Amino acid sequence: MKIVALAGGVGGAKLAHGFAQILPPEDLTVIVNTGDDFEHLGLTICPDLDTVCYTLAGLANSDTGWGRENETWNTISNIEKLGGPNWFRLGDQDFATHIERTRRLKEGKSLSQVTREFCAAWGIKQTVLPMSDSSVRTMVSTDKGELAFQEYFVHRHCEPDVKGFRFEGIEVAQPVPGARDAIKSAQALVICPSNPWVSIDPILRVLKKIDKPVVAVSPIIGGKTVKGPAAKMYAEMGIEPSALAVAEHYHNLLAGFVFDNQDRQLSDNFKKGKILVTDTLMHSPADRARLAMDVLQFVGSL
Amino acid sequence: MKIVALAGGVGGAKLAHGFAQILPPEDLTVIVNTGDDFEHLGLTICPDLDTVCYTLAGLANSDTGWGRENETWNTISNIEKLGGPNWFRLGDQDFATHIERTRRLKEGKSLSQVTREFCAAWGIKQTVLPMSDSSVRTMVSTDKGELAFQEYFVHRHCEPDVKGFRFEGIEVAQPVPGARDAIKSAQALVICPSNPWVSIDPILRVLKKIDKPVVAVSPIIGGKTVKGPAAKMYAEMGIEPSALAVAEHYHNLLAGFVFDNQDRQLSDNFKKGKILVTDTLMHSPADRARLAMDVLQFVGSL
Repeated sequence: MKIVALAGGVGGAKLAHGFAQILPPEDLTVIVNTGDDFEHLGLTICPDLDTVCYTLAGLANSDTGWGRENETWNTISNIEKLGGPNWFRLGDQDFATHIERTRRLKEGKSLSQVTREFCAAWGIKQTVLPMSDSSVRTMVSTDKGELAFQEYFVHRHCEPDVKGFRFEGIEVAQPVPGARDAIKSAQALVICPSNPWVSIDPILRVLKKIDKPVVAVSPIIGGKTVKGPAAKMYAEMGIEPSALAVAEHYHNLLAGFVFDNQDRQLSDNFKKGKILVTDTLMHSPADRARLAMDVLQFVGSL
Repeated sequence: MKIVALAGGVGGAKLAHGFAQILPPEDLTVIVNTGDDFEHLGLTICPDLDTVCYTLAGLANSDTGWGRENETWNTISNIEKLGGPNWFRLGDQDFATHIERTRRLKEGKSLSQVTREFCAAWGIKQTVLPMSDSSVRTMVSTDKGELAFQEYFVHRHCEPDVKGFRFEGIEVAQPVPGARDAIKSAQALVICPSNPWVSIDPILRVLKKIDKPVVAVSPIIGGKTVKGPAAKMYAEMGIEPSALAVAEHYHNLLAGFVFDNQDRQLSDNFKKGKILVTDTLMHSPADRARLAMDVLQFVGSL
């Protein structure tokens, strides 16, 4: 069963890794949000893309879910000593990714081409695609003014109240080569448990029309997000944060929606598609594979 | 006694550190070659400037003379794993210097301004000046064609036969702010034991006329260089490599020349200036201070 997974960072990467454990590599394509990408220290940094790749390659830090395992911090701590910007913590191994990616982009390669090369070097056999080769930059409208995403997310720790989002460059952004073909040959698209506002919406807007069944896994469990500001964003946008709110968010697209067992009662209120209620928390690689299997069976039942 | 030292990399840095040990900080200005600078991995790398600064700050690797002590190599080894250029070995701490310098240069700061800021951050109280704020790039004419300096020096290990040198941008390069004033108030200029062809000549060409006594310390001892390709270059340019050849190289400028004890007999043949014969090898920081003291006394005697 060929699957296209749409993913942001940590949560998306975990479910993508679940699929990677149970599907033949050629049957999995992951399309990754690039709205979080930014230019920092002269480097093009693609946090979601790197989290997905590091996770699939077995290189990710298992404590944080992002960054590299066995990381050292000598470059950033010396930038700090020089009085340079230190708010975005980049490890020494991670710096290699950004330096070499930036070098290849400046040579004229596309982000999807560089990503393909990096995946080959890291031994990733699945297809990982950035959502677009052209720049899309998520801007967060807040009570402190409009902020570039990483400024909001990392530098200001998601503290400002969110009023809305703007995706700079999204009108002209096209899916990368191979994305439409992957969708065409897929049985379904799976929206991973990533932030609907800033991880999935940009991908959906770039992909535009999707002629396949879409199944989404809730990133909100018991009204809270496992990681990241999705629940806080819902509340600040005037919507009670819940798995149901996420299902409503995607309802025009959905063939099915996956609730966590904690939200079983809530799931009764969702009438716009089929539902699966299961354990969606992914503590271990085995949890990821189990949830991926549940989702595949759900897709098969649609 | 105010001194301006002209320096390339390791040898120059050592004698500069000798002066730094015995002179009040405000009495020492080091003007450093930037012809070795190059753009690599999207970064502006200034090898001589960094070697001088790391040495004065006590951060230099005491085995190699260049790079940082207690260095790690996680970034470059991961660039290597990605298939990126690995021939120029940059350590993780060292990367911080290049990343942060490049960022500040792109902000519009001059190299001398960035160097001043870095010196302050590293606790260097002496004045370290790049020879120019505009780009000078040493090109080496060889039997394998013209090569950018680091391509010749590091990538090809100085193997091609040298035919000559070209300093791209030298015609328009001006000394940085403060350089002429430092020379004006100095009692003498000291040419450190650096490569005459590629470390000192570019500085001299940028400074143009020098109205002060100049004393040079030979980088060649017993016909050999302590480090680097100076002797090999002399031979390939058809000149027998010797301290005397170096003295002849500078003879229009020189008030005095410093020979090593090993070249005592050779020194009798130098008639174009005063001479000092002493131990010029600098194995330890104490050696550096002793040689610096010898040179200062020699300057005082002129």
